[in-house]
Amino acid sequence: MSFEPTPWRATVLTLFPEMFPGPLGVSLAGRALASGLWALEVCDIRDSATDKHRSVDDTPAGGGPGMVLRADVLAAAIDAADAGETRPRLVMSPRGRPLTQAKVAELAAGPGPLIVCGRFEGIDQRVIDARGLEEVSIGDYVLSGGEIAALALLDACVRLLPGVMGKQGSALEESFSDGLLEYPQYTRPQLFEDRPIPEILTSGDHAKVAAWRRAEAEKLTRARRPDLFATRPQPNRQKPPKSTTDG
Amino acid sequence: MSFEPTPWRATVLTLFPEMFPGPLGVSLAGRALASGLWALEVCDIRDSATDKHRSVDDTPAGGGPGMVLRADVLAAAIDAADAGETRPRLVMSPRGRPLTQAKVAELAAGPGPLIVCGRFEGIDQRVIDARGLEEVSIGDYVLSGGEIAALALLDACVRLLPGVMGKQGSALEESFSDGLLEYPQYTRPQLFEDRPIPEILTSGDHAKVAAWRRAEAEKLTRARRPDLFATRPQPNRQKPPKSTTDG
Repeated sequence: MSFEPTPWRATVLTLFPEMFPGPLGVSLAGRALASGLWALEVCDIRDSATDKHRSVDDTPAGGGPGMVLRADVLAAAIDAADAGETRPRLVMSPRGRPLTQAKVAELAAGPGPLIVCGRFEGIDQRVIDARGLEEVSIGDYVLSGGEIAALALLDACVRLLPGVMGKQGSALEESFSDGLLEYPQYTRPQLFEDRPIPEILTSGDHAKVAAWRRAEAEKLTRARRPDLFATRPQPNRQKPPKSTTDG
Repeated sequence: MSFEPTPWRATVLTLFPEMFPGPLGVSLAGRALASGLWALEVCDIRDSATDKHRSVDDTPAGGGPGMVLRADVLAAAIDAADAGETRPRLVMSPRGRPLTQAKVAELAAGPGPLIVCGRFEGIDQRVIDARGLEEVSIGDYVLSGGEIAALALLDACVRLLPGVMGKQGSALEESFSDGLLEYPQYTRPQLFEDRPIPEILTSGDHAKVAAWRRAEAEKLTRARRPDLFATRPQPNRQKPPKSTTDG
């Protein structure tokens, strides 16, 4: 056994601390949290408000709907949570760079991020600039706040932490690990509503199974995600050029 | 007042019903849930298991790590939840088509979806085919299950339901509504750590503010999301061609 100094630790800044750990307190992430494989610190941004109404937001400069999270209040919350530390500081926002599995792996390999969850119409740009917040988007849709986005990011990271998943193999054979979507899966019963499991999968021929799965993964990715298919890493082997009459 | 027959209703099939409503029970979605603007039905897939161990999964045909959700058990759960109904049936999966704000708006305008949350290595392909499940991905990363993905999708839908957001305007001026990321926001105080609010925003000149915001949104989108910028809808007005020397 090796000496483990501090576990991977996430700090979440939110106006709704009661949303955490939420789904991360259950199942895989929840068991890992309970057994100390990771730690979650949740800070209420409102605790850094300075006026008697504990206000955290104000109307947008230049007009427009909604309310904007104040730079001074959020900066104080970040400084209180993260004094002198060097670690990734993220803010969940649809304006951010799209989260990828590579970014998840990078975050999982680090000390654990500080994550700001936005609400309202947005966050004052000056605190994003002044505190070096990296805007991260979980997808091209708009949520009511950054909290569920933070839950998604943390869940994706936590499952990659050492000791969290039972079999390391499970992370290797899954979508995006080789730039492809995952091949279709089947399990017992052998026959479901007149639909059998594809014969090759029960043939016992491991090479044929692997080739079939690779072909299915490529077919699915090409059809559903031409963007991924075009940029996938090529397998490390030379193949002679061949002509094809397919599709 | 018009007669409201049934509210928008989501049905979630999961092995972890305790994860719901979770964050959707708080804040915007939570208030809307409590006031009946939408309804959430959560079904435990395990209730449809038929053996004495209530097992729902089995090893992958053809070998490999992890466990696969059984077609017969999940089909029974879907049939129990959705007898004779016509509504979208989704399964959250990284293999799915990426969720977009347009898809969110489409789902919000419908009766509300049935959503299957996967766990384990995957779901038997035959139930996806036989029950017409549409695979939807919230992004190119892998979660420990579909539950947090379902929370994200539901949050995005619910905020668009009639009566949920206070000001309808707030949904119009946000990321993706015009194919662009949102312009930067500022609010009081006027000076934050020697950083002033951009002068134009406090000028009171609405046309100039609008032009500045449009330019900032375009600049940000071009820099951060060239993919979005290339496919953005063009504004509905004729402009004379002009030459430019900008970057």
